[in-house]
Amino acid sequence: MANGGPEIEQLILLLARLPGLGPRSARRAVLQLIKKKEQLMIPLSAALDRAVAAVTVCETCGNVDTRSPCHICADPRRDNGLLIVVEDVADLWALERAGVGAVKYHVLGGVLSPLDGVGPDDLSIDALLRRGPEFSEIVLAVNATVEGQTTAHYITDRLAPSGVKITRLAHGVPVGGELDYLDEGTLSQALKARTAL
Amino acid sequence: MANGGPEIEQLILLLARLPGLGPRSARRAVLQLIKKKEQLMIPLSAALDRAVAAVTVCETCGNVDTRSPCHICADPRRDNGLLIVVEDVADLWALERAGVGAVKYHVLGGVLSPLDGVGPDDLSIDALLRRGPEFSEIVLAVNATVEGQTTAHYITDRLAPSGVKITRLAHGVPVGGELDYLDEGTLSQALKARTAL
Ligand SMILES: [Zn+2]
Ligand SMILES: [Zn+2]
Repeated sequence: MANGGPEIEQLILLLARLPGLGPRSARRAVLQLIKKKEQLMIPLSAALDRAVAAVTVCETCGNVDTRSPCHICADPRRDNGLLIVVEDVADLWALERAGVGAVKYHVLGGVLSPLDGVGPDDLSIDALLRRGPEFSEIVLAVNATVEGQTTAHYITDRLAPSGVKITRLAHGVPVGGELDYLDEGTLSQALKARTAL
Repeated sequence: MANGGPEIEQLILLLARLPGLGPRSARRAVLQLIKKKEQLMIPLSAALDRAVAAVTVCETCGNVDTRSPCHICADPRRDNGLLIVVEDVADLWALERAGVGAVKYHVLGGVLSPLDGVGPDDLSIDALLRRGPEFSEIVLAVNATVEGQTTAHYITDRLAPSGVKITRLAHGVPVGGELDYLDEGTLSQALKARTAL
């Protein structure tokens, strides 16, 4: 039976689909929203409305922002020195939080995974091949998983004819670990000690 | 620095205030929302708009619903047999999910807690004293915490002159446990084996 009517039930169902929230925590979240209607529910509703209207994907790098090119691609203090290639936007955000400097990014949108039917055409690899050679160095900051490393090898092979310098993050990223869960010091160190591929 | 502009940053900050979500999971939730804009973000935005407009608190029992009296108080299949007194709406919902039958509820809105400055006037106790004697039995389904049990004793004393039968949930609720985290079978059993106070 619906708790408190269809509007509330619908809100619980949708919140339960967010990562980190199950049905039980979604119910608690909805009660918290209702309890703090003025301070939390109405502002969240307005913030979502604004985000729905404003959010877009950067056509240059794949970052999520409210404009394209995004504020990173458009930042005049960032030159074409380092291009950091990441699997997804969460990794880009993690590196930005680590304060890795005046770099630019390229979001692949995933990793090669033949078993899941993900091939080169499903990722933003062609765009990387066009864009990458404009930079002095490309850092392949993919996750230390089998698929991540397979993807790194594939990109290295495809970029080799251009002669651009390609590096990877230093070891220090735990094997099998995901960038987004690392502390910012580790990420920063791993970038400083990056090695040539 | 803001990730992806102020609209996105604001959404992360607000989501991080929901129970069960911290800053890191809020960022993941926002990326998930953006990735599934059509299937998740827009429906969630619409659901929140509708809930903000519709949600109210039942003037009779304190339940959260889209009408007052709520669908439980207005349900003609529920008579004035059992009145179950709970601390908050999450407990009411947990009992409803357990399918405890054609009962009615009274939400206290908390428990007595002198250290936190919560006295009888801060809870819905006067309303319970007026409403309770209309029922054949009042079940005090407060949490098995010190404050919950203190609150149960206080209510028992105040209701004694009315002569209404007062019971509590059977032991089976773990000491220190919170109703909302119990499985539905345990809750159902605890209600069936309720004992007189
Ligand atoms: Zn960009
Ligand atoms: Zn009600």
